[in-house]
Amino acid sequence: MTMLNKDQILQLLEARDGRALRDLWRGRSAVDIAALLDTVEDPRRQAALFRTLPKKAAADVFAYLPGPTQARLAASFAEGELQELFDGLQPDDAADLLEELPADLVDRILRAASPQRRMAVNALLRYPADSAGGIMTPEFVSLHPGDTVRQALDTIRRTGIHRETVYTCYVLERRQLLGCVSAVDLLTAEESAAVTDLMTADTVSVGTLTDREEAARLLAKYDLLALPVLDGEGRMVGIVTVDDAMDVLAEEAAEDLTIMAAVTPDERPYFAASAWEHARRRLLWLLILMLSAAVTGAIITRYEDAISAVPLLVAFLPMLMDTGGNCGSQSATLVIRGLALEEIRPRDLFRVVRKELAVSLIVSAVLAAANGLRILLQYRDGAIALVISLSLAATVVLAKLVGCVLPIAAKRLRMDPAIMASPLITTIVDAGAVLIYFRTAAALLRLTV
Amino acid sequence: MTMLNKDQILQLLEARDGRALRDLWRGRSAVDIAALLDTVEDPRRQAALFRTLPKKAAADVFAYLPGPTQARLAASFAEGELQELFDGLQPDDAADLLEELPADLVDRILRAASPQRRMAVNALLRYPADSAGGIMTPEFVSLHPGDTVRQALDTIRRTGIHRETVYTCYVLERRQLLGCVSAVDLLTAEESAAVTDLMTADTVSVGTLTDREEAARLLAKYDLLALPVLDGEGRMVGIVTVDDAMDVLAEEAAEDLTIMAAVTPDERPYFAASAWEHARRRLLWLLILMLSAAVTGAIITRYEDAISAVPLLVAFLPMLMDTGGNCGSQSATLVIRGLALEEIRPRDLFRVVRKELAVSLIVSAVLAAANGLRILLQYRDGAIALVISLSLAATVVLAKLVGCVLPIAAKRLRMDPAIMASPLITTIVDAGAVLIYFRTAAALLRLTV
Repeated sequence: MTMLNKDQILQLLEARDGRALRDLWRGRSAVDIAALLDTVEDPRRQAALFRTLPKKAAADVFAYLPGPTQARLAASFAEGELQELFDGLQPDDAADLLEELPADLVDRILRAASPQRRMAVNALLRYPADSAGGIMTPEFVSLHPGDTVRQALDTIRRTGIHRETVYTCYVLERRQLLGCVSAVDLLTAEESAAVTDLMTADTVSVGTLTDREEAARLLAKYDLLALPVLDGEGRMVGIVTVDDAMDVLAEEAAEDLTIMAAVTPDERPYFAASAWEHARRRLLWLLILMLSAAVTGAIITRYEDAISAVPLLVAFLPMLMDTGGNCGSQSATLVIRGLALEEIRPRDLFRVVRKELAVSLIVSAVLAAANGLRILLQYRDGAIALVISLSLAATVVLAKLVGCVLPIAAKRLRMDPAIMASPLITTIVDAGAVLIYFRTAAALLRLTV
Repeated sequence: MTMLNKDQILQLLEARDGRALRDLWRGRSAVDIAALLDTVEDPRRQAALFRTLPKKAAADVFAYLPGPTQARLAASFAEGELQELFDGLQPDDAADLLEELPADLVDRILRAASPQRRMAVNALLRYPADSAGGIMTPEFVSLHPGDTVRQALDTIRRTGIHRETVYTCYVLERRQLLGCVSAVDLLTAEESAAVTDLMTADTVSVGTLTDREEAARLLAKYDLLALPVLDGEGRMVGIVTVDDAMDVLAEEAAEDLTIMAAVTPDERPYFAASAWEHARRRLLWLLILMLSAAVTGAIITRYEDAISAVPLLVAFLPMLMDTGGNCGSQSATLVIRGLALEEIRPRDLFRVVRKELAVSLIVSAVLAAANGLRILLQYRDGAIALVISLSLAATVVLAKLVGCVLPIAAKRLRMDPAIMASPLITTIVDAGAVLIYFRTAAALLRLTV
């Protein structure tokens, strides 16, 4: 594919050469046009450029623009233009657009829309954005149980506008889902065959209020192109399509990663947020964790006499605290990932604790031996080597247990386990590590504390 | 969907009630049958149960089993059985199976396969597992530029075995890709129309050696059901399908997450690995990081006199080191994520540094103020408060710079940026933080060092 050239395009716009622009747009993917449009910073030129798009492509391009750009663009449109754009969007994208617009504009657009469309969009607006209902599209191919293959293919031809939504057809009776049949099965079957003979009856489905991440995972697990969504009365009201499911999984993974690094999540790309916004997203947890670290500080002040007597003790604090933090975050990360993939369930708590205990005994033995040896060689002080090795071993066990228990506990309390990642675990384990260390030192080195 | 009951199924197997078992399997998803089969621990019962599957379903179920289970199951099969199974698999799954089997068995199976099949599977085996060639399937619908819609639909009917692979058809001339046309476009067009009139000419494609993650991202970005793969001479040799792309993205995300927590990645679920294996995957980095922390320890020993003079200084070490580590890992995580999503390119180094510098100035001002205030209130010691606040501010700036530079540097050196995450950043920043802290303290408190 040849690239779109932004400078050339802006020159053509300047020269008001609409024909050359239309030629450029022809055959281009809506994704690429949207990406280019999003880089045009001047709102007027952006809107002017958008207006040169062929009517058919405009809605597709618009659907691929980020929310804030959509809102800004929509604000510069006349109401008639907005109406036309709105009618061209798929219902789920139309609902997303309405969520970005001011309320009075939304009212006027909905009033002017066809009753059918208004109903479809309104229904979508009712569901939370993070639910299967919030990401589904109400457009799908529904067949009658009495249909033949020929009738089914005709139905596909009639409803088949958007390609993601027609390759799986659903057989409904009084809006209840009887089963599904794929377009390829219809294509390869005799035209006179009954769809019920081709149909798979045992169909995976979700409710409108099912978490969107769970819906996306089901779709991935069963290699589906679309997943039916049922309302509270078991009536089929829409489908989640595979392209939306992929986006959901990517967003959720990025969100988890961000939370695990103690950053408030934000969908926007790195450079799209200002330094102030970046700082705001990072300060909350930094402040909480910084003030929590005062607990560890307070513990240390209780052992000032020991420190004065053997200042060398302080030299091993970073190693001890870092190793504790690393061990804890290893366990926490594996457990958070296991919970997200449903390999680990909250009721597996004791199985996880048993496994982490076994792992931590092996790990602590190896680390304590390696470290004891290093200290013996470096400082030729057996007592210090013993204190460090014992403290290290106990810290590793503590860290791994805290690291595996907290995410599961969070899940049980219906909190996001991703919060219980490296930063928080490190802060908690630090206090324990310092306490273990100075107590061990005091006992073995016979220090007064 | 009703669940499959393992106990009931094992009882039926015990009773050799093949008919009841076949009834149970009917209409079940291959995914669910594979999941159940994988939980049967006794290899003989597992193989016996697998043999009760209908011929048509067996290959599908097999394809959903994890690699090690496939290998174990395959080992218990007679050669004829294995041959039959091999012939039922899609070429990409067949190639995956061969990679799990001993070499002599692979030779015998390939010799007995049809020449066409042997060629297809051999071709796949040539590509690295992490390339587009390694995950593609050579089965796709190829049309001639002179075809009509009717001929195209006939071609779909003839090749349409596997549903993922038929919904996008490719128009080839001398094996070069001219464009693609979707099944829904074919279905809704006049039967006498020419496929070249419906075709999209500007088609996204990748090379056989393109990284599989990049291929999967392209597929997600353009909302495709399949992505064409071209060889070095530009001939189309296969497609990457959306279901495989979803799996790739999930695996790559999990791998990044694991590396970022200083754990050697492993595809297996949490409980599938033994405690020894878990320990082995975690020890390498723990040892490296633990021994690196000795540098920070060595720096501290140089300031033993200062510590003896003002033991209170030690109390603020955990807060300082933790905040530095947290700030660094925030920046590192955002940059690693930005690099993975290609929002940040290696050449953006200075743009990133400028942004992180701005963010770190805001963050350090807020944190230093909050912390200075707390220390003033708690210890009523202005000099100490000043030392801590200044050291903290400098540490935050250092941490954010190290956190953003190292992942980009790793990318430039063609290393995995995910290595430059929280654990390594923390260890590096610790040394800097301690140095800054004691130097500041020595200067402001007029300590002799």
